[in-house]
Amino acid sequence: MALIQPRTLKGFRDYLPATMIPRERIMETARQTFRSFGFAPIDTPTLEHLEILTGKGSEETDRQLYQFVDAGKRPVGMRFDLTVPLARFAAQHIGQLGTPFKRYQIAPVWRGENPQAGRYREFYQCDFDTIGTESVLADIEAVTVIDSLLRSIGIEAFTISINNRAILSGLLESLDLADQTTPILRSLDKLGKIGREATAAEMVSAAEIRPDQADQVLQLAECGGGADEVFAKLPAIIGDNATAVNGATRLREIYEGAIASGVAPERMKIDVSIARGLDYYTGVIFETTLDELPSIGSVCSGGRYDNLAGLYTKEHLPGIGASLGLDRLLAALETLDRLSSTSKPCPVFIPYFDKDRRDDYLKLATNLRRAGIGTEVYPEPRKLKAQLKYADAHGFAYALIAGGNEWADGKVQVKTLAEKASEEIEYTHDAPEKLIARLSETENPTRNQSSQTAPPV
Amino acid sequence: MALIQPRTLKGFRDYLPATMIPRERIMETARQTFRSFGFAPIDTPTLEHLEILTGKGSEETDRQLYQFVDAGKRPVGMRFDLTVPLARFAAQHIGQLGTPFKRYQIAPVWRGENPQAGRYREFYQCDFDTIGTESVLADIEAVTVIDSLLRSIGIEAFTISINNRAILSGLLESLDLADQTTPILRSLDKLGKIGREATAAEMVSAAEIRPDQADQVLQLAECGGGADEVFAKLPAIIGDNATAVNGATRLREIYEGAIASGVAPERMKIDVSIARGLDYYTGVIFETTLDELPSIGSVCSGGRYDNLAGLYTKEHLPGIGASLGLDRLLAALETLDRLSSTSKPCPVFIPYFDKDRRDDYLKLATNLRRAGIGTEVYPEPRKLKAQLKYADAHGFAYALIAGGNEWADGKVQVKTLAEKASEEIEYTHDAPEKLIARLSETENPTRNQSSQTAPPV
Repeated sequence: MALIQPRTLKGFRDYLPATMIPRERIMETARQTFRSFGFAPIDTPTLEHLEILTGKGSEETDRQLYQFVDAGKRPVGMRFDLTVPLARFAAQHIGQLGTPFKRYQIAPVWRGENPQAGRYREFYQCDFDTIGTESVLADIEAVTVIDSLLRSIGIEAFTISINNRAILSGLLESLDLADQTTPILRSLDKLGKIGREATAAEMVSAAEIRPDQADQVLQLAECGGGADEVFAKLPAIIGDNATAVNGATRLREIYEGAIASGVAPERMKIDVSIARGLDYYTGVIFETTLDELPSIGSVCSGGRYDNLAGLYTKEHLPGIGASLGLDRLLAALETLDRLSSTSKPCPVFIPYFDKDRRDDYLKLATNLRRAGIGTEVYPEPRKLKAQLKYADAHGFAYALIAGGNEWADGKVQVKTLAEKASEEIEYTHDAPEKLIARLSETENPTRNQSSQTAPPV
Repeated sequence: MALIQPRTLKGFRDYLPATMIPRERIMETARQTFRSFGFAPIDTPTLEHLEILTGKGSEETDRQLYQFVDAGKRPVGMRFDLTVPLARFAAQHIGQLGTPFKRYQIAPVWRGENPQAGRYREFYQCDFDTIGTESVLADIEAVTVIDSLLRSIGIEAFTISINNRAILSGLLESLDLADQTTPILRSLDKLGKIGREATAAEMVSAAEIRPDQADQVLQLAECGGGADEVFAKLPAIIGDNATAVNGATRLREIYEGAIASGVAPERMKIDVSIARGLDYYTGVIFETTLDELPSIGSVCSGGRYDNLAGLYTKEHLPGIGASLGLDRLLAALETLDRLSSTSKPCPVFIPYFDKDRRDDYLKLATNLRRAGIGTEVYPEPRKLKAQLKYADAHGFAYALIAGGNEWADGKVQVKTLAEKASEEIEYTHDAPEKLIARLSETENPTRNQSSQTAPPV
């Protein structure tokens, strides 16, 4: 019989252990962080009625949608994000769930885009949202979640840029330019690339505004510096428009509330130039960049929106949420050489080389596991050298070597594989404590590190 | 604009928090258990080339396959299990990964079956396998994993039924009935329902065997009792056929190795009557039933197979694996009233009722989270009574009540919600220790309970 060629579809990929281990660890850290703030998990189906999905994203997502007619003749589609399913879910269940409703969802989505470097047709999104409240406390909390999430993942050098869309909206309102918001934002987006003069010229031509109006908009976008400096300069730029003034007041409240919640001031940047898409967000918006690799873009973004589920329900559901860019973050950690290269999720390896001692190896492994120390036993009695090669190749931290002599002496040899160092530690099945204590000295990747060790705020 | 009706597809469902919390907890426990034995996570795409999937399961799975032609004109299908993708994955990557290869995968699969009570078109599978070794140690380990998994989930009363398919194969070989294996197994499957006499009659007619042969087969199937009893009776039934004798020896080795590994003998049953499907398994097979709810069927099943990926590669890949029936187990836990009814993943709730103390509530929450105690703050300053209603409805363990008086006195009121009891505990932001100690007394669902507390084996 001819063999079928084993291969994945274009734009799809397998995750091998060395890639999947850090991926899974970050997802678990995210779950634990979200839960620790009271966000609860939900899940929604991969497939939705097509009408739920089409026209809810951009023209691009419509074009990229995986859609077909199922065996029951129903037009169906595979979800392209987690926001549209959340809107459908909220419209359907919010009466039962009540508000405020805080949820997270970590799940794959599908987009048939042309695969490029680092872009795939199946990828994970990792979202959290608080729905049904306009309270500033929810905004403060979103900043705190992002801070806590990145630090729990082990990242210390990052910057959360925060803005409030209401500030620019209010300024444009006062300049009588509310209708030109979209072309103005489109021009503003180029400020970093083409410079002030060209941006101003484009605003004047494309958005049909006066040069002095363009200048005022640019003054706002360029209002940089530390948070106190920005808050000091803003009043002169935005004048007395109520929307803008309230927007600035709320932005300051979020910043100060985040500091009270333990977010270090130096990790936040008040950046009144960021916009994040044109239509969806209406209030505070966030972007998060890694200080050591800002070029990779934002790894956690989000903001406040006015009404989540208007297409499916008359219930007005304001909310705030953000999304961790899992793949981007993993790519960054790889570039920064922060991912361990292990393909094994447990630290201890026990070679099985004295074939008469199988039950002793099994008991040793069980005793370590019961103490929370993940342990693999090689399945076949082979030469020690071959087994140690396997241990090295897979990145175990320790090999525990015990042959007839060691068992007779009540000892095992603990080999630290990276350092090629060995020491003998007392061990019997009835008294495993010393060995457990020795092996617990190191970080144990089978345990989760949920609690942060920072001092009280 | 007309509203779109928010609804899920027939046979699909949303998971709300109260259902998703225990579901996610079991999946995490499974991951931690698998990892603690050296099984590493992998992931494979939802969509595969259609030719990878068709003809690999049963006629039924072929008929139920979600399949379509993608935008690039490729026939594709959504995976219907995790075994076929694993076979494709192993054929493709085993050269790089090496053997033994130990993996787990927890992921959804899709089957367009007619939805019945408790059956859905999208459901999770939760599989672990050791590939590339025929060693008995891998078989022993599979039993140990199942035992460890159920106990980590919090189930103590269960029975792992173990058989070795080689025993019946050898007996049929010695009776010259190897070619009639399939109809014989089909008849044997009915033994429990239709009784000995009818089963024997059916074997004689359907499988065309002699009554004395049917009697010998039934003697094996009825060889019950404790493990020692079964092992004592077997030799007389199976005679000197080498396949059967080796099969019985290996079965005993697995049983004794599992005991050495810490599995309680009373949790194992040597049951030479179980078969688990007709073609796939060739060696040891397992089923696991809950002693308090055996009628729900096996919650964790698996076995040893000869060659995983023969359709995709010439490399011979024997292995052993099993699958946790997540949905069935959750249904059982619900029936047994073992699921907590909380819709919140953290134990502590802080009402925000003294509106001037927002920052104090935020600081209190941060200090508890940093000590590993998940804490939600209500987002809006409302009447205490309404907030306590919210806390009760969501199943929080504690509400921490602090108004102006409490803050002035350096105390918070700890309300244990289920018992409607309150006590005052000292707390200031600089000295949170007493409160943390009080709240740490209880089980904390935001932490994972990975290590088992059993004594050494």
